Amino acid sequence: MRSRAEATPSFVWVESLGDPGSTIALPRDESHYVARVCRARAGDAISLTDGRGGLATARVVKPAPPVVVEILEVQAAPARGGTSWLLCGAPEGRRDDWLVEKLAELGVAVFQPIDAARSSWGTAAGRIERWERLATAALRQSRRRYRLEVRAPVPLEAAVAALPAGAGRWVADPSGRPAGEFRPDPTLAIGAVGPAEGFDPREVSHLMDQGFRPIALSDGRLRAETAAVAWAAWWSAGRIGASEARAS
Amino acid sequence: MRSRAEATPSFVWVESLGDPGSTIALPRDESHYVARVCRARAGDAISLTDGRGGLATARVVKPAPPVVVEILEVQAAPARGGTSWLLCGAPEGRRDDWLVEKLAELGVAVFQPIDAARSSWGTAAGRIERWERLATAALRQSRRRYRLEVRAPVPLEAAVAALPAGAGRWVADPSGRPAGEFRPDPTLAIGAVGPAEGFDPREVSHLMDQGFRPIALSDGRLRAETAAVAWAAWWSAGRIGASEARAS
Repeated sequence: MRSRAEATPSFVWVESLGDPGSTIALPRDESHYVARVCRARAGDAISLTDGRGGLATARVVKPAPPVVVEILEVQAAPARGGTSWLLCGAPEGRRDDWLVEKLAELGVAVFQPIDAARSSWGTAAGRIERWERLATAALRQSRRRYRLEVRAPVPLEAAVAALPAGAGRWVADPSGRPAGEFRPDPTLAIGAVGPAEGFDPREVSHLMDQGFRPIALSDGRLRAETAAVAWAAWWSAGRIGASEARAS
Repeated sequence: MRSRAEATPSFVWVESLGDPGSTIALPRDESHYVARVCRARAGDAISLTDGRGGLATARVVKPAPPVVVEILEVQAAPARGGTSWLLCGAPEGRRDDWLVEKLAELGVAVFQPIDAARSSWGTAAGRIERWERLATAALRQSRRRYRLEVRAPVPLEAAVAALPAGAGRWVADPSGRPAGEFRPDPTLAIGAVGPAEGFDPREVSHLMDQGFRPIALSDGRLRAETAAVAWAAWWSAGRIGASEARAS
């Protein structure tokens, strides 16, 4: 065991960092984490991020929930390295939660759920809030300065129409060219994965027309959420020297 | 919807394929899948694998559980393409189930759980049987001819001592060189991932001494199961032209 003084400071998310000298009450999950998991004491150092690249050093003032910290120093967001977005149809069952968690850990910037011809995400209450909590927990785990942005489901054409120009576009397809033949784009790479039932032929045509390249991530058929995470891992592995700023 | 005649035959696992002309009662999960999920009828075509590369075409004789099929033709296992093994410490909580499922979908050959200095897998009853069921379900999903082999947990040194010679060896390490700088070995690649608490320094030294190269799969810290799946996805993406035989 390392001593408390040597330990890496806790790393948590807050909506807004505030100014040096100000105090902040941490959100509920973050308070719980700092008080119960890290067992913080008054005076302990802690790092905060707003999940949009900003980073602050702080000191614990009140170690019991709601935990209160005093901001010491704030760093603005640095220029962001290469990022990725993922468009994804609905997987089977409750596989969405771990999908979101893994995309967030791997550093994907935007998760855009897609309502596809063969399957839509439905309207489960509280789902986006749950995804946001998972994204925040993954940010703590990975000590990232950027949090996965989770969006509400939209139809495929609307999602594609809203994509930034100039990004590399990829659609997971077992009959595509092997992923190992490609490198992800250094600035922005956008992946698309069909729902459990697959994209229908009209959707596939639309993606091709819009510049999506078919990429095979495995020599077997993957479930929707597996293809999404495998695409994110391929993107993550290929980001040589384009490291996103993070807390060490 | 495709008609029944056009549909891809169901694909299931059996312990042993038998000879042409013989009949086989499918195992319980496979029977359920064929009868309830695929809604098979007598006379339907079906594909069987023994999960060791063998493949058979068959015809449904009795469509209600226990489903009985008649073997028509048997293909022996072809030469196997590049494979991978994964050594993995215990993740937090019940994340082992999806870890096993995803390794099996991605086509990893062997899952070797590691009892590490900081964390061991414990002795949960029925866990290996549950992992085997998940591996079989993933084989059906991915239509693979080889099933993930799940082993009982062993200490790190024993696992490393038992590894085949001549394989590429990799250990997931956020401070390693970026995965994008490497290609997985075309015959056998072996990955090692520490438990949630990480390998201890003595274990890291041992892995280095035994030829494991540190590989960074992400620019953030990954949970144990995420690192394992990201490593498998990196390996899968890099297997250009070394496709494992599978049913189409």
